Amino acid sequence: MSHPHPELGLPPTLPDGALRVVALGGLGEVGRNMAVLEYAGRLLVIDCGVLFPEDHQPGVDLILPDFDYIRDRLDDIEAIVLTHGHEDHIGAVPYLLRLRRDIPLVGSQLTLAFVEAKLKEHRIQPVTLAVREGQTEQLGAFECEFVAVNHSIPDALAVAVRTGAGTVLHTGDFKMDQLPLDGRITDLRAFARLGEQGVDLFMVDSTNAEVPGFVAQERGIGPVLDSVFADSAKRIIVASFASHVHRVQQVLDAAAAHGRRVALVGRSMVRNMAIASDLGYLNVPEGVLIDLKGVDQLPDDEVVLMCTGSQGEPMAALSRIANNDHKVSVGPGDTVILASSLIPGNENAVFRVINGLTRLGARVVHSGNAKVHVSGHASAGELLYCYNILKPRNVMPVHGEVRHLVANAALAVQTGVPADRVVLAEDGVVVDLVDGRASVVGAVPCGYVYVDGSSVGGITEAELKDRRILGDEGFISIFAVVSSADGKVLAGPQIHARGFAEQDEIFEDILPELTRALEESAAQGATDTHQLQQVMRRVVGRWVSNRLRRRPMIIPVVVEA
Amino acid sequence: MSHPHPELGLPPTLPDGALRVVALGGLGEVGRNMAVLEYAGRLLVIDCGVLFPEDHQPGVDLILPDFDYIRDRLDDIEAIVLTHGHEDHIGAVPYLLRLRRDIPLVGSQLTLAFVEAKLKEHRIQPVTLAVREGQTEQLGAFECEFVAVNHSIPDALAVAVRTGAGTVLHTGDFKMDQLPLDGRITDLRAFARLGEQGVDLFMVDSTNAEVPGFVAQERGIGPVLDSVFADSAKRIIVASFASHVHRVQQVLDAAAAHGRRVALVGRSMVRNMAIASDLGYLNVPEGVLIDLKGVDQLPDDEVVLMCTGSQGEPMAALSRIANNDHKVSVGPGDTVILASSLIPGNENAVFRVINGLTRLGARVVHSGNAKVHVSGHASAGELLYCYNILKPRNVMPVHGEVRHLVANAALAVQTGVPADRVVLAEDGVVVDLVDGRASVVGAVPCGYVYVDGSSVGGITEAELKDRRILGDEGFISIFAVVSSADGKVLAGPQIHARGFAEQDEIFEDILPELTRALEESAAQGATDTHQLQQVMRRVVGRWVSNRLRRRPMIIPVVVEA
Repeated sequence: MSHPHPELGLPPTLPDGALRVVALGGLGEVGRNMAVLEYAGRLLVIDCGVLFPEDHQPGVDLILPDFDYIRDRLDDIEAIVLTHGHEDHIGAVPYLLRLRRDIPLVGSQLTLAFVEAKLKEHRIQPVTLAVREGQTEQLGAFECEFVAVNHSIPDALAVAVRTGAGTVLHTGDFKMDQLPLDGRITDLRAFARLGEQGVDLFMVDSTNAEVPGFVAQERGIGPVLDSVFADSAKRIIVASFASHVHRVQQVLDAAAAHGRRVALVGRSMVRNMAIASDLGYLNVPEGVLIDLKGVDQLPDDEVVLMCTGSQGEPMAALSRIANNDHKVSVGPGDTVILASSLIPGNENAVFRVINGLTRLGARVVHSGNAKVHVSGHASAGELLYCYNILKPRNVMPVHGEVRHLVANAALAVQTGVPADRVVLAEDGVVVDLVDGRASVVGAVPCGYVYVDGSSVGGITEAELKDRRILGDEGFISIFAVVSSADGKVLAGPQIHARGFAEQDEIFEDILPELTRALEESAAQGATDTHQLQQVMRRVVGRWVSNRLRRRPMIIPVVVEA
Repeated sequence: MSHPHPELGLPPTLPDGALRVVALGGLGEVGRNMAVLEYAGRLLVIDCGVLFPEDHQPGVDLILPDFDYIRDRLDDIEAIVLTHGHEDHIGAVPYLLRLRRDIPLVGSQLTLAFVEAKLKEHRIQPVTLAVREGQTEQLGAFECEFVAVNHSIPDALAVAVRTGAGTVLHTGDFKMDQLPLDGRITDLRAFARLGEQGVDLFMVDSTNAEVPGFVAQERGIGPVLDSVFADSAKRIIVASFASHVHRVQQVLDAAAAHGRRVALVGRSMVRNMAIASDLGYLNVPEGVLIDLKGVDQLPDDEVVLMCTGSQGEPMAALSRIANNDHKVSVGPGDTVILASSLIPGNENAVFRVINGLTRLGARVVHSGNAKVHVSGHASAGELLYCYNILKPRNVMPVHGEVRHLVANAALAVQTGVPADRVVLAEDGVVVDLVDGRASVVGAVPCGYVYVDGSSVGGITEAELKDRRILGDEGFISIFAVVSSADGKVLAGPQIHARGFAEQDEIFEDILPELTRALEESAAQGATDTHQLQQVMRRVVGRWVSNRLRRRPMIIPVVVEA
């Protein structure tokens, strides 16, 4: 368990009447968002999401928030408030509910529908409480008022949490599109009222704090889609996020306007859009949606395929289409639209897809050459509005890497929040609100919890280092049977290597020296297998380093017989 | 050896009086640029660079052009023309000269100085011919006229190659900054003259063909550096490419203007700038350069550190400074400037560095928040100028991924080059210029040649797949000694696993079943070790897949005794 802040000691016990905030994820990374509020011995969890691994975390499926801090206090949790239905806010809920199944989930209708669909796959039937904007619920020690915010998924909520220690406003993820498709804007009126009443701690989305100005309007994408559809003579394939209901809505509308039918491709796309249209968040124009099987019966210029894989995920539909190994094929005259962002780290994968589609003859439209995507997170200009409307007493930037948190803190200070009232905290840092002042009082251990196959939390940095060595350098296993009587080598030594450029034969060069070394050290009285294994490791390690200029993992095994 | 174009057969023999062009790298990727021209049985090589590996090529040091096409014709090579001194144009020269040491290297003074410094490390003393813009040299069957072009390294050249089959103009890498620091502009007058005389094949840099408009001027960075220097109270660290002489020049000038001294950090930075100033390409203001050891004697506000590592390379100075494990330390009040591009694929590494520096308290200025970098490659607007001035008879876009080549081809067609005179070719595709018309006539095998430790070309896709499996899934080795007499297990089975989340003990669960399976199949007459090894692989493979949900590499070894 890593302790990210050795300079910070463990926190003192929480003073009576004070509020404690600890983020177990999302502060120092984009993902696995989770905040724990404590008041009067009770806990409130805000969001519980996953983080997706980077290349230096090979073989890892998912990364979870570190639950250790609350593992012994599960019964103190009043509820988990879910601000919206994105994976980085709900994805870890099944893993937390495994620890205690009956923690109530509180969120909007769509958010709960998405998390329930996910929990079904984990065979968990949750306790839920659906809430709407403007609604106030007393969740044990925490009075929660829910506020509408606009984001890249419908039905997102901010939450104002009132306690005896003061009021916390947590934005969740949000932006301030003033003309959103569903007319549901971020409720600045409520922000103003809360500000008048007094917001003691403002926890605010930092993702785009480095980006100057304002996010363009989602509805601005409609006309762009329209013009791309207008000069597309054959098939159109659109890739986007499977939860981006409004983006899909605009694709459906463009298709209807141009006499095309739309087939949804990809399990999550099909599932989420079914939920969204059942609940009335997606309005499907009469007869526009068709089954993928029906596509081949239609002329190319009447087809739109709406699929996942906009980040170049190798198993997703779009990557397989680009590699020509999907039942949907792409060719000259077809148009592919990547109506999505390019998440940092995915560039190589996405450009591989774009090159593959281009090689097949398709025209590829993406955010790099057309306005087919807008961000879901408030830019600096929007954040300034929030600070000025709220005038919060204390600010704690959340949701972002260090560079984002620091940029967001600077914006708060520019609007007049005293610098010593702006709390820069990373995962595990303990922030107490005492007598209306927020400050860092310590830190708790907070590491990365890796999900890998059937294991949750089993993988440590040590195993990841092993994997990086295995992947970069390969491995050599050496096996020998020695006589317990006289230390003579009865069988072997055998060498097996993987991940090497050289032919296996090359490793036979070292066998005679290896046998000699084993029998010499046996003659010198080295009998226990551990010593002999060290001998084999040393001999082969030196040889492979000099001869092949590599440092593989070496596994020596000596068996006595 | 992979054949990227199965639909294309091997090319016919080259007709008398015709010219053949084959790119062995750089067409379909950004890097390892190398073109081979053939006329009258003789060959001319233009550039010979390296490509840097991506994450799906673990452990690979470098990727070379595929020399197989010329391996049996080394004596036909008249010369290697090097257009400029970047790694992706000169980096593979040592590997080609290993095949034939006396191939003449032809290039500008600075280009040859850079390649000679590199060859020294490989203990190769090359045969060289230094040329200047405006100069014409008869290189065997090829008359080469060299033309000044402007790029992100000084002394870059385009080359016009005249043969009996016609004239080829190869731009190398270039852009068209109209007010470059050294006043040495891309010679559009020469382009115009060549166009009047007739350019039969225009081989043109595609890197920025997707980017609309024009590249900003390098000198525009000076005032930005100036203002950043002006409000920096403590140390300034600038990171950029070690070959970007003009960028370093502007840092030196800004330092001099603000009374700061500059220490160069990083072996390649020190070496290249020594070469550049010796040859007069870098003008070092009196007394500005100091040794790194001298830095600690100076007050922070008189120090600039000019270092490498702008792409987040983990071993480079900047990454180690960001991780706090370099003799140079960074703290609050210090300013770090990343005066470089962000090469796709490096985002995670670069942002890790930015976050690390930000966490240490430094202000980080980069191309994302200030104009501290401009590209070295012509954008679409500049390319249109070239096409209109040259009016080439045939066009072959070079240097770029498929998306770049296709975008460049579209620009050519927009300026009036007939679409059937624009040749889209990838690595290995054979383009013949016959009777003034260029067309694809076939393809030759052209794969990726991986340099890995001491091995050149030994690594194949198979080993890379092994490494990816090892890195993602880990491995299990199983050993057993069985009696050749009765097939009883005399020692083992032993299991050794790496890269797993689970404790080693878990693997003991399968040992009894393994022993049983071995002795049963021995009883059923399976005596040869190969069969028994398959039994072990099957038993363990099934168990690990069901129990741990993983598919590791499994190495079973059975020895008879």
